[in-house]
Amino acid sequence: VVELKENSYGKSSVRLTKVVRNGVHHELIELSVDIRLSGDFTASYTAGDNSRIIATDSMKNKVYVLAKERSFTSIEEFAVLLARHFIQSYSQVQRAVISISQTLWQRLASPDGPHPHAFTDAGAERRICRAELVGDKLELSGGVDDLRFIKTTGSEFRGFVTDRYRTLNDTSDRIFATSVEAVWTYASESADFNGTFVAARTSLLQTMANHHSLSVQHTLLVMGEAVLKDCPALRSIRLTMPNSHRIPIDLQPFGLENDNEIFVPIDEPHGVISGFIERE
Amino acid sequence: VVELKENSYGKSSVRLTKVVRNGVHHELIELSVDIRLSGDFTASYTAGDNSRIIATDSMKNKVYVLAKERSFTSIEEFAVLLARHFIQSYSQVQRAVISISQTLWQRLASPDGPHPHAFTDAGAERRICRAELVGDKLELSGGVDDLRFIKTTGSEFRGFVTDRYRTLNDTSDRIFATSVEAVWTYASESADFNGTFVAARTSLLQTMANHHSLSVQHTLLVMGEAVLKDCPALRSIRLTMPNSHRIPIDLQPFGLENDNEIFVPIDEPHGVISGFIERE
Amino acid sequence: VVELKENSYGKSSVRLTKVVRNGVHHELIELSVDIRLSGDFTASYTAGDNSRIIATDSMKNKVYVLAKERSFTSIEEFAVLLARHFIQSYSQVQRAVISISQTLWQRLASPDGPHPHAFTDAGAERRICRAELVGDKLELSGGVDDLRFIKTTGSEFRGFVTDRYRTLNDTSDRIFATSVEAVWTYASESADFNGTFVAARTSLLQTMANHHSLSVQHTLLVMGEAVLKDCPALRSIRLTMPNSHRIPIDLQPFGLENDNEIFVPIDEPHGVISGFIERE
Amino acid sequence: VVELKENSYGKSSVRLTKVVRNGVHHELIELSVDIRLSGDFTASYTAGDNSRIIATDSMKNKVYVLAKERSFTSIEEFAVLLARHFIQSYSQVQRAVISISQTLWQRLASPDGPHPHAFTDAGAERRICRAELVGDKLELSGGVDDLRFIKTTGSEFRGFVTDRYRTLNDTSDRIFATSVEAVWTYASESADFNGTFVAARTSLLQTMANHHSLSVQHTLLVMGEAVLKDCPALRSIRLTMPNSHRIPIDLQPFGLENDNEIFVPIDEPHGVISGFIERE
Repeated sequence: VVELKENSYGKSSVRLTKVVRNGVHHELIELSVDIRLSGDFTASYTAGDNSRIIATDSMKNKVYVLAKERSFTSIEEFAVLLARHFIQSYSQVQRAVISISQTLWQRLASPDGPHPHAFTDAGAERRICRAELVGDKLELSGGVDDLRFIKTTGSEFRGFVTDRYRTLNDTSDRIFATSVEAVWTYASESADFNGTFVAARTSLLQTMANHHSLSVQHTLLVMGEAVLKDCPALRSIRLTMPNSHRIPIDLQPFGLENDNEIFVPIDEPHGVISGFIERE
Repeated sequence: VVELKENSYGKSSVRLTKVVRNGVHHELIELSVDIRLSGDFTASYTAGDNSRIIATDSMKNKVYVLAKERSFTSIEEFAVLLARHFIQSYSQVQRAVISISQTLWQRLASPDGPHPHAFTDAGAERRICRAELVGDKLELSGGVDDLRFIKTTGSEFRGFVTDRYRTLNDTSDRIFATSVEAVWTYASESADFNGTFVAARTSLLQTMANHHSLSVQHTLLVMGEAVLKDCPALRSIRLTMPNSHRIPIDLQPFGLENDNEIFVPIDEPHGVISGFIERE
Repeated sequence: VVELKENSYGKSSVRLTKVVRNGVHHELIELSVDIRLSGDFTASYTAGDNSRIIATDSMKNKVYVLAKERSFTSIEEFAVLLARHFIQSYSQVQRAVISISQTLWQRLASPDGPHPHAFTDAGAERRICRAELVGDKLELSGGVDDLRFIKTTGSEFRGFVTDRYRTLNDTSDRIFATSVEAVWTYASESADFNGTFVAARTSLLQTMANHHSLSVQHTLLVMGEAVLKDCPALRSIRLTMPNSHRIPIDLQPFGLENDNEIFVPIDEPHGVISGFIERE
Repeated sequence: VVELKENSYGKSSVRLTKVVRNGVHHELIELSVDIRLSGDFTASYTAGDNSRIIATDSMKNKVYVLAKERSFTSIEEFAVLLARHFIQSYSQVQRAVISISQTLWQRLASPDGPHPHAFTDAGAERRICRAELVGDKLELSGGVDDLRFIKTTGSEFRGFVTDRYRTLNDTSDRIFATSVEAVWTYASESADFNGTFVAARTSLLQTMANHHSLSVQHTLLVMGEAVLKDCPALRSIRLTMPNSHRIPIDLQPFGLENDNEIFVPIDEPHGVISGFIERE
């Protein structure tokens, strides 16, 4: 006998641009929303009975309608609002998970000051959040993804395991390059989400820049500690940091010495370091 | 007080081409391997003490060396072999997770029969597996990712929830298009991995093609049941199927009727349906 | 003084799925169409006078409408038909360029023979064409893009320039891997486009597989010659072939010899070889 | 008879990181270089005679060596230097084309001022250039690619062709979003490349932000004129601007009016507008 043990379904990549007009001064919000619902949907799987199925097309419409009807100042607020709406509107929904990724536009500087309605690219970085609601129990996280960073010194990697498989030399000065994914959990639903985002992001970048790194692991923990210290609203943080290798090129075949000047950036293979740091 | 509760690190996207020469008849294997280790690495995070750290560069080397020294006939075998090697070589490693994705090349047909050493693209599809070893406890899964499929009829979607957010009409004839991700767990480490892959893949495709679908959910369950029926070596299967929408174009503004002929394929937003089916 | 010397505009990536129903046997056509128009559009640039501008949204609609109203059996036919329509409908259009890329679906084999309406992925390969119409002068090309191929022997690379910058050794046995882009021009608008595509593709693959290659350049020319020999409807062919390197891994640090067994595939940097071959 | 009419080959995506250390203050340069050579290489195609072939691997090495041996302050300088080196070193090279794309890192702001060696993502934007050298005749261009911009008002699109294929309404207030590709040609090899880049980029962004747009065509020309006015070193500019559509969502089915607030960003299909503007 074979049985359906878990089910979930939803809509991915519901993209949305919202313009908030405060007179001539405009705010621009660009989001991509993912929705996953679980609950009493078994009849749809077993019998093709769709009477409890909310079409994923209707989920998409709900995102648009709520974006219009509700005002919100952070993606965390919008995610919670959407999760609540699904749980409260449909008794068959037992669990709603809303994940949002925000493209960050940067207001154009103009000779007369910040431009009222023009914006440029703020990088690959995305602000992210996730609200999971089961009944009235909410788990809420925020974070940043693909926050790219590079420093050209202040990083060592020495004294690691020597055995048959080691060919890498010790180095006391290497390039440290990464693309941080940070996911933090809020202690409460009423946290200052935007203030926390700014503080955590600053904390990540300044710590990475200034910590004398003995390994990515070493710096990652200091970064996590700094965020939890600077952001009292947070309970924990998970950091995942690829090692975006810049490999020194061997110039000896050409009669040259490479004094840590010329490197080749490679995308693969790449190291990945992660850690989960929690307030006790 | 703040504490490091979990750590893991490893190497991603270690790509590898292996050619096995049986006289003039060559086999071609192309893999991408991901490695994650957890264990007694805390000193590296807290004190920059790397004495227990196996460099991710050394992990990469180990993949190359084992690919040379060992013969294996499936990615599952190679994943288990790698996981064992990490656990057995380094006492500080408590958990090793090896994930492998295989690019499937198709032997070129030539006038004289299958070509001995030439191959062409077999599609976006990847054969995948994952071996997680904690001490001597192994969890082993296989599967397929991005198995693209489309059928032009034999699919309905009717009778779903009607409320303020619904704008989609009932349809009794739509295009069914998806890209299947299937992850199955083996009941035993000594399963016939290659035979199971072929049988499961065939089962997925033939079931999708021939099942009269009342929803993606409906077809997904039948597919999972078919795989477990056809593959006795499997204990469970998790299926994740995006709905790769083909939207009928409204031709009425041009005085034309669209008899289910002309569609626009859209990548986003898209539905995603998943289910986990287990043998009792 | 500054002047607008050239203008063109259009719509890119107009995607389209067309299902042709011959009773229960369905044909599936998936295309992406790019349109570029040039002509008497200067007033739009200089004065914001849009009275001669065909909105790119209208171009998209025209693609949908013609896909519905007209039957065609090849992308070349559809491209010519679209180009003609733009030139004939709008006197301000002096030049129309239509480029089409077709996703190739492969009919599913089922126990009862080819399935009437189910299809699977036929690889990254795209069938392509381009029709450029200036007045009544047509230039028409067809081709294939991203046709991936690998052979594990039958390829050498020796005797190239030796100087300060050379570090690569001569090799008499290497992996030959590429992804062919072929663009051919038709001698006439009434060529057998589908027959030519099949013949040219076969010719490319069989020649690559069986030619003993002394360099990619060497094989490229033989491929081009073979296509022109096998396809009398063609006037010329341009081939562009990246060298999708598989680099032998140095296993000497591990006390092993690599007998051309273990390679690392790299995406970048990569060689690119091209040639244009014409019938005299 | 069939003949090889054109040949060219080279190396693509030679990536490079160069760190210039002025004491503790570091400069970071990240490039990707493409090389294409044409010339007397026919014997390699026709006879597999590689004696005149410079291996693409050697080209890659030359990039590394020259990056080390030479100092340069702009990608234009480095491109010219490389093109000259190929033409001067190898008599069989008749034409050398060097294309460079530069990733722009942004120096981290820290409480103590600009950080001496830490950098963050400066967006998808790339600084680009191309040097084509035939004998001693140089054509040199610079530019920017994927410069993303959005403004939420100040853009109209009205009065375009009305016919059977038009369904788009006139609008006097729409979102203007694009990703500019600008390629400019220098009047002389001794231009101030870095000063020109900054001036041209500023000119593009400020003009886009402040021009009241009646169409993308309309704004594109004003942008090109502004760049040529602000940058006397330039002879011409080619602008290519996709229309990165933000489509207003129809909220009437939900009893709501959309006052230009809620949009869906779509990637495809998309308009593309281009123009070539030259100083007389």
